[in-house]
Amino acid sequence: MGLFDIKGYLQENKQLIDEALDGLLPAQDVFPPQVHKAMRHCLFAGGKRLRPILACAACRAVGGDPGVVVQEACALELIHTYSLIHDDLPAMDDDDYRRGCLSTHKVFGEAIAILAGDGLLTEAFAVLTRGFRNTPHAPEKLLEVIHLVAEACGSRGLIGGQVVDLESEQKVIEKDLLEYIHNNKTGKLLTASVLLGALLGGADRDKTGRLEQYGRAIGLAFQITDDILDILGSTEELGKKVGSDLDKGKATYPGIMGMDASKKMQQKLYEDACSALEGFDEKAEPLRAIAKLIVERTK
Amino acid sequence: MGLFDIKGYLQENKQLIDEALDGLLPAQDVFPPQVHKAMRHCLFAGGKRLRPILACAACRAVGGDPGVVVQEACALELIHTYSLIHDDLPAMDDDDYRRGCLSTHKVFGEAIAILAGDGLLTEAFAVLTRGFRNTPHAPEKLLEVIHLVAEACGSRGLIGGQVVDLESEQKVIEKDLLEYIHNNKTGKLLTASVLLGALLGGADRDKTGRLEQYGRAIGLAFQITDDILDILGSTEELGKKVGSDLDKGKATYPGIMGMDASKKMQQKLYEDACSALEGFDEKAEPLRAIAKLIVERTK
Repeated sequence: MGLFDIKGYLQENKQLIDEALDGLLPAQDVFPPQVHKAMRHCLFAGGKRLRPILACAACRAVGGDPGVVVQEACALELIHTYSLIHDDLPAMDDDDYRRGCLSTHKVFGEAIAILAGDGLLTEAFAVLTRGFRNTPHAPEKLLEVIHLVAEACGSRGLIGGQVVDLESEQKVIEKDLLEYIHNNKTGKLLTASVLLGALLGGADRDKTGRLEQYGRAIGLAFQITDDILDILGSTEELGKKVGSDLDKGKATYPGIMGMDASKKMQQKLYEDACSALEGFDEKAEPLRAIAKLIVERTK
Repeated sequence: MGLFDIKGYLQENKQLIDEALDGLLPAQDVFPPQVHKAMRHCLFAGGKRLRPILACAACRAVGGDPGVVVQEACALELIHTYSLIHDDLPAMDDDDYRRGCLSTHKVFGEAIAILAGDGLLTEAFAVLTRGFRNTPHAPEKLLEVIHLVAEACGSRGLIGGQVVDLESEQKVIEKDLLEYIHNNKTGKLLTASVLLGALLGGADRDKTGRLEQYGRAIGLAFQITDDILDILGSTEELGKKVGSDLDKGKATYPGIMGMDASKKMQQKLYEDACSALEGFDEKAEPLRAIAKLIVERTK
């Protein structure tokens, strides 16, 4: 099991996703070019493609063909990128850098950045339904996936998390509220990514439930790792400024629980993720390796 | 035919849509309340509910039961409202008033206004798929509707129109470009509204095509009327400042073609809309009356 080449797997899948994204998004000279350039700027500035890769890995884990969920998986990356563009705006987190490049509003101005974000979010739903007449998926399954994605990134999901995150700046907050922020801002879309792959891969109810547990565990683990890296990482590796959470008076797990307890929680969540995958065969190896990577990553 | 009570029809349908919107959107005390209050602020500040009403009227025109498309029709109003909130932002059109009330960012601040817009857009797709297991619509039809709505309001639709509108401020532009702006910023979502009702109402290909023509005609007529009213209307009736297009150096039909030619074009588009409805029976009366109202409205 330890021999599974996760680096190769991630690299290969990232390339697959990047190519698919390039084909799905309007070319940068499509009229009006300014907004299409902006939509592509942040999307192709970098990014690990974690959400689409999780979707493909979950599809494989339940015995499905990951190739047939690539298009739907790309919608997740479009949504993630829209959220980054909007989060970076001056009215929000006011970040000048993202994925190691100037953020979208620094290059294209605020108006185009807002519209590029809107465009990516809208495009996600166009992509989820593109070619719906020839899709290998049952139409009911696609509707289920669209619904769960929309709920995950709505005002009681990703957007709600960002709202509370903004409102909590410069405030002392409890662990419960921090968990709400992380669970909504990051966790729900990661979980939706896993579920998208599971549902379209034909998972039964039991496996879907287990993968949901897996998604929740790695979602929170991912964010705790982010918080830890914001303190211990390097700007060069992260592609954004280290200590920026502290600068903004943002609450973090190490800030609330201390570094040791945060690392313990990270480890516990990793174990939860692995437990959720008990009963899955070697096809779930990428999911196991991703969970490990999430807590061990340095950027 | 002239006896059709369009005022009563609109009033009744507006009430139906308002009640449905209220039931579909998270209550304003749902956590986090700030964003849900903001989402409701602009949505319930007023609005004619033209898009949902068009969807219901188109459904009726093809012999469907308008009651069964109310939920999907509401998604159109959520999208329209998100576009208003984002358009009004300081980085965009910078408007302080909307629907006769303070615009969302004036009341809740820019960050929450951006997020409330994002929330409404996302909620639209959640609403289009809510209860998908018990919907009276065929899943393929719903997917088709979701796709056409997403295309209509994407970067080659509504968002593209706003991009070009912003870029054209203080510039002399040709009639073609103005038509691009209006067709994309307003026309495509209005057309999608008509098509949503037609498709879910069970229209055949011929009727769908004719309703698409109708949608295009009233879409452009609507915007020309807007331009005319911006010059001739009163602030009180419009709920926004008269002459604001001129103030911003925005191109308008009267500005490019003159008032007389604009009024002639308005009349021609009304006739096109009516021609498109030839072959429809009295069930299309609301659509005919709406076309008339669009060119005769004073607010």
